[in-house]
Amino acid sequence: MTAPVTIADVARLAGVSAVTVSKTLNNTGRISEQTRARVIQAARDLGYVANPAARRLRGARTNLVGMVVPELVSPYFAEVARAAAEAASSAGLDLGVFTTSRDPARERERVAALSGGLADGLILVVPTDDPQHLDVLQRSRTPIVLISHFGTPTDLPNVRADSYHGAHAATTHLLDLGHRRVGFIAGADGSSQAHERLRAYRDATGERGLLDPDLIRPGNFTQRRGFEAARELLDLPDPPTAIFAASDATAFGAMDAVKDRGLRVPQDISVVGFDDIAAASQSHPALTTVRHPIHDMSDSALRLLSGALAGEAVRGTVLDYPSELVVRETTAPPRSS
Amino acid sequence: MTAPVTIADVARLAGVSAVTVSKTLNNTGRISEQTRARVIQAARDLGYVANPAARRLRGARTNLVGMVVPELVSPYFAEVARAAAEAASSAGLDLGVFTTSRDPARERERVAALSGGLADGLILVVPTDDPQHLDVLQRSRTPIVLISHFGTPTDLPNVRADSYHGAHAATTHLLDLGHRRVGFIAGADGSSQAHERLRAYRDATGERGLLDPDLIRPGNFTQRRGFEAARELLDLPDPPTAIFAASDATAFGAMDAVKDRGLRVPQDISVVGFDDIAAASQSHPALTTVRHPIHDMSDSALRLLSGALAGEAVRGTVLDYPSELVVRETTAPPRSS
Repeated sequence: MTAPVTIADVARLAGVSAVTVSKTLNNTGRISEQTRARVIQAARDLGYVANPAARRLRGARTNLVGMVVPELVSPYFAEVARAAAEAASSAGLDLGVFTTSRDPARERERVAALSGGLADGLILVVPTDDPQHLDVLQRSRTPIVLISHFGTPTDLPNVRADSYHGAHAATTHLLDLGHRRVGFIAGADGSSQAHERLRAYRDATGERGLLDPDLIRPGNFTQRRGFEAARELLDLPDPPTAIFAASDATAFGAMDAVKDRGLRVPQDISVVGFDDIAAASQSHPALTTVRHPIHDMSDSALRLLSGALAGEAVRGTVLDYPSELVVRETTAPPRSS
Repeated sequence: MTAPVTIADVARLAGVSAVTVSKTLNNTGRISEQTRARVIQAARDLGYVANPAARRLRGARTNLVGMVVPELVSPYFAEVARAAAEAASSAGLDLGVFTTSRDPARERERVAALSGGLADGLILVVPTDDPQHLDVLQRSRTPIVLISHFGTPTDLPNVRADSYHGAHAATTHLLDLGHRRVGFIAGADGSSQAHERLRAYRDATGERGLLDPDLIRPGNFTQRRGFEAARELLDLPDPPTAIFAASDATAFGAMDAVKDRGLRVPQDISVVGFDDIAAASQSHPALTTVRHPIHDMSDSALRLLSGALAGEAVRGTVLDYPSELVVRETTAPPRSS
């Protein structure tokens, strides 16, 4: 084991002084073309990497966009990361995606590392809603764009999608088909989006006098919990004829539970999801769901970040995307009607 | 805009000296429980983050596994990253995934940043096959595990899957069905896996005297190129009755081209992919493909990395997974037979 390659190693190989290497790599001072070429070749040959934090202080670009997400296991965040990688790639940038396991301390560490010279700019997806954390973010010298921040107001650019209207439309769609008992499998506790989806379900069923607390089951956005919660609903003395799940993964779990009972979707039980991840249109039958515009949101976040890097005033920008019902094959009128 | 939070800020808020803060956060010296609690609270309130590189030198864990991948736009690498995030999460670790756009200089920078204290260990997917780069990796003090490295030998742990036998089996499957003209859409130039898949196709068709260079089209693993290359093949005076594509994404593009011509898969043209990404089993019809054991490989890479972090001797370990033909719905005997 030896130490990392230093500027002295580069100087030795190129046969010049360390100062000449430094001047060459920093584009300062007068260096002959021949010397410059020799130094750059030596640095390349040795795999020399300047301290990224130091380079950033000099204003050099890293060409890296940092992204911090709660996790990458759920297909939703995996798709958000992939959409951001696509948008970054189109802009000639690379992406560094960090998970935090929803631990605020880890989130702070990742943000500090990324904004300390590793990345040109940061995209934070569902940042922890802690006023002091958000204050640190606002004071960062590294441009930061938020995705799906709904809590404490900040002046950081924020790209988000409304959950309420799409969830209301989904519930109403089931009621309009004739369902009178519509089950709901909630998202994770503490998620503002989960809260909005539940609120919309309550409002839509309440407006028709069809709200029954027994039909609401706690959840956590996962497929496994969707399976369990749907079984609980199907075990009720008066089970629902339709299930609205707060995420597509949860809806897939619910569909598994329905099939596991020897019932069919949508003939026996209608199922609706939320997010419209890629798998939603590819499932059998294809999932009726609420579209969360993941790609549009990632594109906008990258555009705002590029704007900030180019010196544009993007502070205070809030982009609110609508959510939209997409009717596919998992919803039908109830058997009895 | 103000400077990042320093140890002096923490000291001021906690009403103690900077030395006391340092001792508390480093767990050195004698500090009363009361003072310790006050310092930790102040550090938390201010979002103070110790320099990660410095902490790493002290042997502190970051709980972060760094992963470097060429890109995240193709579903293959997106799935590799997600599988690694899942394996890391099961081990209580977070993941930081960096793209390099296949630029060796960017790859070196990302590796330097991650191994310089940001991450506990690194997983490099298809590292650039450059002897000097690999030499730097071998001398790194940070544990490194390679995925899919086939070039210059190193003693770094290496997890990979064979492409040859699966590609040979896929081609033979089509020939056994009665196809005499099997088209091939290659992977990216310079990829050793692409090379192995082409070599297997050449061998399998050659063994039956059915190798025709006109039926081999260059590709780059993308869906778009699969679409174009399949059109070229269908435009031949004597077009193939089956197409073997070097990736599932390419196969999806080929299927699009076949449907676009008003032809059906598999009745008119059989199509086979490679990788078995999640979408392969969900397409209509479901794709016959060669399974690349992405999840097993990510699990093994994480296990080797955890072993190295626990002080186990993992140097020299090479895990070779087989690739395996998965017959689904996109292959059938040719029309004429």
